[in-house]
Amino acid sequence: MGGPEIDRLIQLFAKVPGLGPRSARRAVLKLLQQPETRMVPLAQALAAAARAVKHCAQCGNLDSANPCAICSDPARDPSIVCVVETVADLWALERAGVHHGLYHVLGGTLSALGGTGPDDLNISPLQSRIGQGGVAEVILALSATVDGAATSHFLIDRLAESGVRVTRVAQGVPIGGALDVLDDGTLATALRARR
Amino acid sequence: MGGPEIDRLIQLFAKVPGLGPRSARRAVLKLLQQPETRMVPLAQALAAAARAVKHCAQCGNLDSANPCAICSDPARDPSIVCVVETVADLWALERAGVHHGLYHVLGGTLSALGGTGPDDLNISPLQSRIGQGGVAEVILALSATVDGAATSHFLIDRLAESGVRVTRVAQGVPIGGALDVLDDGTLATALRARR
Repeated sequence: MGGPEIDRLIQLFAKVPGLGPRSARRAVLKLLQQPETRMVPLAQALAAAARAVKHCAQCGNLDSANPCAICSDPARDPSIVCVVETVADLWALERAGVHHGLYHVLGGTLSALGGTGPDDLNISPLQSRIGQGGVAEVILALSATVDGAATSHFLIDRLAESGVRVTRVAQGVPIGGALDVLDDGTLATALRARR
Repeated sequence: MGGPEIDRLIQLFAKVPGLGPRSARRAVLKLLQQPETRMVPLAQALAAAARAVKHCAQCGNLDSANPCAICSDPARDPSIVCVVETVADLWALERAGVHHGLYHVLGGTLSALGGTGPDDLNISPLQSRIGQGGVAEVILALSATVDGAATSHFLIDRLAESGVRVTRVAQGVPIGGALDVLDDGTLATALRARR
């Protein structure tokens, strides 16, 4: 509909996470109403980000600076490294503003079913980063899933000989969460970890 | 987060209809994983569409050809013109493949509250289009809302003197629609228009 340019644009928009074929069509139609003020700036922003943004060589974060803004921030404590699965998790922690050390993005979790082994994750870079010294504590902030727990255990094992302190984020009832909608696993963990 | 390029991209994505700040962030993160295969093509498609796509001078459809592919299709019947509010409505009818004539996009409905008068809509171009001859029937396919109905009545009035046949799409129970979830207005209309 509307020529090959529109078809291709809808096709590409439909693959954007969060959009489907129907919402992509709606979005493209709205954007086409304001080509100069909305489409051209979006095209330029996409091209600029694709050009500039790289994975930080130290922590794996996505940033247009390398090392990233977090790694090169002198106000942050380099002795505490928080290990996360994805850049999205890193950003979530940053939005919460609760971690003042540095990060390390694993790139996922170990997964027997998914065929993800230790060599598929950023585990060796983490070890060599710790081997360079200066890291006192590694906080594991991985998903509270079977794979996340397996990965945490694996990392605790691997990092044991380095002598660094390894901690895990607490599991329990989320703030604002009603007990009656929580699954049994969370309730059991919360009860066991009572303080 | 991640430098000015990422911030700006998230900001622009958040304004895409169907996405919000949260889903924009998620979408941008996903796209950033594949800059070359996903971001660059999307940037190019956006720029190409912004450059190429124009409103059809005859019907108001959005297309990279002008007159649009529908207006210039010799297989279509130019004597039947279907009047719709928006390009989205035109595309919906085209997807259904039920109209084999041409279209005319009004650009909205008359609205006392919204301050949209006859001069804000593509009504004069419709009249001159009919005045040029060759149009035997005008089908009004406007929303079944107060404003849509007011606009239909206004158009029926305006087009009365042209001698062209003016029809309206039927209103009633949608196919697959259960009666008990329909509003009273639809039920009343469906009952009144029983055949």
